[in-house]
Amino acid sequence: MTVANQRFLQACRREPVDATPVWLMRQAGRYMSVYRALRARHSILELIKSPEHATEVTLQPLDAFDLDAGIIFADILTLPEAMGLELEFISGQGPVFHNPLRTAVDVDRLQPVEPREALAFTLDAIRLVVRQLAGRIPLIGFSGAPFTLAAYAIEGGSSRSFITAKTFMHQETRAWHQLMEKLTAGVTDYCLAQIEAGAAAVQLFDSWVGMLTPTDFRAGVLPYMQQTIQRVQAAHPDVPVIYFGTDTAGLLPSFRETGATVIGVDWRIDLAQAWDLIGRDRAIQGNLDPVYLFAEPAVWQSAARQVLDAAAGQPGHIFNLGHGVLPRTPPEHVAGLIDFVHRTSCRPS
Amino acid sequence: MTVANQRFLQACRREPVDATPVWLMRQAGRYMSVYRALRARHSILELIKSPEHATEVTLQPLDAFDLDAGIIFADILTLPEAMGLELEFISGQGPVFHNPLRTAVDVDRLQPVEPREALAFTLDAIRLVVRQLAGRIPLIGFSGAPFTLAAYAIEGGSSRSFITAKTFMHQETRAWHQLMEKLTAGVTDYCLAQIEAGAAAVQLFDSWVGMLTPTDFRAGVLPYMQQTIQRVQAAHPDVPVIYFGTDTAGLLPSFRETGATVIGVDWRIDLAQAWDLIGRDRAIQGNLDPVYLFAEPAVWQSAARQVLDAAAGQPGHIFNLGHGVLPRTPPEHVAGLIDFVHRTSCRPS
Repeated sequence: MTVANQRFLQACRREPVDATPVWLMRQAGRYMSVYRALRARHSILELIKSPEHATEVTLQPLDAFDLDAGIIFADILTLPEAMGLELEFISGQGPVFHNPLRTAVDVDRLQPVEPREALAFTLDAIRLVVRQLAGRIPLIGFSGAPFTLAAYAIEGGSSRSFITAKTFMHQETRAWHQLMEKLTAGVTDYCLAQIEAGAAAVQLFDSWVGMLTPTDFRAGVLPYMQQTIQRVQAAHPDVPVIYFGTDTAGLLPSFRETGATVIGVDWRIDLAQAWDLIGRDRAIQGNLDPVYLFAEPAVWQSAARQVLDAAAGQPGHIFNLGHGVLPRTPPEHVAGLIDFVHRTSCRPS
Repeated sequence: MTVANQRFLQACRREPVDATPVWLMRQAGRYMSVYRALRARHSILELIKSPEHATEVTLQPLDAFDLDAGIIFADILTLPEAMGLELEFISGQGPVFHNPLRTAVDVDRLQPVEPREALAFTLDAIRLVVRQLAGRIPLIGFSGAPFTLAAYAIEGGSSRSFITAKTFMHQETRAWHQLMEKLTAGVTDYCLAQIEAGAAAVQLFDSWVGMLTPTDFRAGVLPYMQQTIQRVQAAHPDVPVIYFGTDTAGLLPSFRETGATVIGVDWRIDLAQAWDLIGRDRAIQGNLDPVYLFAEPAVWQSAARQVLDAAAGQPGHIFNLGHGVLPRTPPEHVAGLIDFVHRTSCRPS
């Protein structure tokens, strides 16, 4: 389906736009009272696994704000769950896997996944959202990237230093590559299924990849990112693939080599410097520090203007935060930011 | 006092060395059984505030391993404690301040500190250690850098997103600068006092500075780092000042402008790329991922060799981890790493 608002897709292709497109990671979530009201009655997994609820949550920020893209409400951990890991969201602690992968035998246990069956709830939600949007703006699908899923699967949850996951990667080299191959197959298929369901772009979230040395990234992650992105692009050459991680300033030269259409960067590097490292022949997404939205408008306007200035004079910038919207962010600041970006970047057409 | 082992100081001055010097952040600590035995009977603050205990802990790794420098056992938070913040180390939670700074009035409350009185325990420990080392190796003194102390003082402890501290910095600009001025005065004086007590170098730990955008760093932090380092260097031109932070790959071009003699970097960037950003006319310290030491020797030897190779052909590299030794690190791997660095980097003299 052709969408009316083409800004996001144009920027992904580095075509001229009438104003810089903006969407925000976690644009659906706890900072919105309509979301909190729904969460008071349902667990996160209940919301994700009900296509109707996931559709409602996805549309909440799109009804409230002048966003240039939606992103399906889902979670990166439903894919490894579908591969046999027992997932639970524990209040105050976040997601945990009760049967983490600790040995090569555990990796063998991991089942191949048919996302069209096991993750049909998210694919159905994508179809519902696309129908309801009726071509107003594009919808982004997403998956966890293989590395972050592997780190979760081995560690069993979040961690300060990820000693278990990294040591597995450093020492159990063969099992590590087997695990990454299995996850790459699952991630690729999941992305393809989301595009078939109507996603106009896909973002690969590699939230934890910034814990790695550049050498470890190149040896243990890069080939799998290349495979994932190549396979998606081969099947759908017109669908942008966004690759995002945090703490990645030292990895950006290697990020380029993934082949991603768009690289998402956090706030820990100047956007202009990041773009130089990624290469100006790629689109870039970012990178306002989400904490700015807790200050008064004059403060985040000035910071947002700096981001826009760093990207000025060249097509291919998608405005976003450097990470997700934080839970207690004032919603009126989110609304104001989106309007500010459009107004400030507006170009005579 | 002239020290027999000059490798560390030579490398700080970018002079040729017979082998790459090595010391490790948190080289004294929980991974050593002699330390755990002492901690079973005393709190961290008891150990730090007793010059005899602090001396014993400082010397533990120097007796066990072939290190090229010692670092005084102390904590960055005793300085803000001496300025009026109520410090407590809570088991399982880490250090907290019970009366964090939340307003400009709170900043006014912060008292100037006379480190020669309020922090005499650490200065006495430095004197004791230097006497016991009897010129064998140099001793490094240290302080928290003004930004990390300010972030702790405002936030009241560690945090995931540092919303309170960053928003104070973004919004209460005048109070922020007053706070940084007060901390800069305290940090500078504390460093000078440690050098007078016998420290041959000082390291400024800016553990949390990597949470900032480069723009925020330049506006709110850089001038104070420049002041601190200039004042120390003006009084003691021969004493190296090391500036260290984590997650700083995007900040390194600005780190150069602090004027630090040595820049410490974490493992998230290739050492050679970091050195290019810092400038080859500065010394560099780092940067093995501390998690490597949990793997078998062949694995961390290969990773350590890559660090050495990235620094080869140029004086001015001090080998270190990219952050502190982790609590359950096998001590025999620490011993092996130090010997490996010396052996592998050994140059015919």
